[in-house]
Amino acid sequence: MEDRGLNRGVLYINVTSHYLPAITIRNERYQCLAGVSAGWIQKRSGIRSRTRACCHENTSTMAVEACKHAFEQIPYSVKDIDLIVGATYTPCDTIVTLAHAVQHFFDVPKARAISISSACSSSINAIEVVEGYFATGKAHKALVIASEHNSTYSDDTDAQCGRLWGDGAGAVFISKEKISEKDVKILDINTTGLGPFGKAMDAIRMRPGNGSLRMPASRDIFSNAIRYMVTEVKTTLKKNHYTTKDIAHLIPHQANLRIMSQVGEALGLHNGEAVTNVEDTGNTGCASTTIALSQSWKKFKKDELIAVTVFGGGYSSGAMLLKK
Amino acid sequence: MEDRGLNRGVLYINVTSHYLPAITIRNERYQCLAGVSAGWIQKRSGIRSRTRACCHENTSTMAVEACKHAFEQIPYSVKDIDLIVGATYTPCDTIVTLAHAVQHFFDVPKARAISISSACSSSINAIEVVEGYFATGKAHKALVIASEHNSTYSDDTDAQCGRLWGDGAGAVFISKEKISEKDVKILDINTTGLGPFGKAMDAIRMRPGNGSLRMPASRDIFSNAIRYMVTEVKTTLKKNHYTTKDIAHLIPHQANLRIMSQVGEALGLHNGEAVTNVEDTGNTGCASTTIALSQSWKKFKKDELIAVTVFGGGYSSGAMLLKK
Repeated sequence: MEDRGLNRGVLYINVTSHYLPAITIRNERYQCLAGVSAGWIQKRSGIRSRTRACCHENTSTMAVEACKHAFEQIPYSVKDIDLIVGATYTPCDTIVTLAHAVQHFFDVPKARAISISSACSSSINAIEVVEGYFATGKAHKALVIASEHNSTYSDDTDAQCGRLWGDGAGAVFISKEKISEKDVKILDINTTGLGPFGKAMDAIRMRPGNGSLRMPASRDIFSNAIRYMVTEVKTTLKKNHYTTKDIAHLIPHQANLRIMSQVGEALGLHNGEAVTNVEDTGNTGCASTTIALSQSWKKFKKDELIAVTVFGGGYSSGAMLLKK
Repeated sequence: MEDRGLNRGVLYINVTSHYLPAITIRNERYQCLAGVSAGWIQKRSGIRSRTRACCHENTSTMAVEACKHAFEQIPYSVKDIDLIVGATYTPCDTIVTLAHAVQHFFDVPKARAISISSACSSSINAIEVVEGYFATGKAHKALVIASEHNSTYSDDTDAQCGRLWGDGAGAVFISKEKISEKDVKILDINTTGLGPFGKAMDAIRMRPGNGSLRMPASRDIFSNAIRYMVTEVKTTLKKNHYTTKDIAHLIPHQANLRIMSQVGEALGLHNGEAVTNVEDTGNTGCASTTIALSQSWKKFKKDELIAVTVFGGGYSSGAMLLKK
């Protein structure tokens, strides 16, 4: 059933984990902040509340918290990890990146460490980078951490998008071996850079030195997110000789429930396959699918097919096909 | 002479290019800005002047400028590029990353696009990411752009490090084929994450949302930069059955002439092998070695060995061994 190319080898996700900060802010707060009603927010985005980091937290500390839960479960020593890839577009520190902070906190001396961004697609890009390191034989046990501290760069009073953002982190541990029956096999993974298309340069931006997180053209994002998330899933399924009917669980990027609903419809899914968390966390950026994967991890049954699909500002898209 | 592992394959740098902005600021300016003399700066760092982006420029526009020069020279179509990896710790936009901006500007629709950071090691990490994509067969022609806009995040009046920073960008085009006699073969490449060591978490930081670019512990960086840049070169040479005597050109990260001098001494080099630009550009971060590679490209003679070695805050190190 697989056509993975000569050098790609097989990857397994051994453990997933996530962290959501202690603060949640319900929609009602935005009546006074931005003059929008709770019902209007929910109708437009599906969001009821969003997570918010405490004042002592940041992208790196949330990444560490997400990993703490996981390190209790991984079936090998922390010291065996030889690659750490961080994913974020809301960095606390671009020199002491979140990958380096995690490497330091857990004292993983042997690991290569980098942090990456392709916006909300970053978590899938990060796993694709792991695939590459595994293919060269330079790494065998990898940790990917997606962490977003949207609230530190966004403005709650911004009527365009201030209400949408949540904070949180998710982690996945990947190796070449199936270690337990809980493991999930990565059948395929793909990413696509979409810089030349639509309003990629202007629709959403995150300029740390100039205006932070803004979304001036949400409609362009809306239509392209649906289009490319659907395309990524269909292409990856076809390449691996599956159809949309084989999908047991769909984990789309958690930006907006209406986008996810239209992705599900376009794929012909009607039986609650979609895993969602945006209702309670808001859009946690590239961490959203990793958090959703971790939240639904125990639901997956043997031989079930799980499709993860993402769309990021800038633009980018990606998909990952998993089999329990 | 090579032991590259089963899947790594061979990589060639086909073209290099760089861009330095039009403004330079001489040391004398820092007498009134930070109370330090021109001679003192030069004695401590080797820097005489530093490059400075114009007000309309940023990390992404400088990356585009660097690529413009290269696109006139590459021996294949721009449309053939299937991977763009950006490298920076001073992003203009973390959603519309510099890789996406370049993909958009040159209309490269097929390319995967991500931007990465491991601080001043990012350019070598980026090429290692390319190596991985090549190993999986997902990419065949890659563009790596390292671009730093240090001045937008640094403070000229900061007496600790404000005087050190320059702005600029460098690009390398990499493929699996030797296309002309000008091409340089990548014999080997390695990176190391060093988060657990020294004052990695505190020595230098770049926090876009909290204090920007600061260097509270330059001594710790100084000693670790020498130690690990030397180690990376020696390890890579040994693995490939070379000795330091085989090095024709050494391109170290361009942070400080004293660091580079001590790296050269520790490697037993005394014949002007080191390529430097820090005197005229200041520390251009992860772009520095790519700019230096581009600046010295035409000097390389057939069969000469070139060693690139880097050290980054956070910490990270890396080396790349090239053969003309």
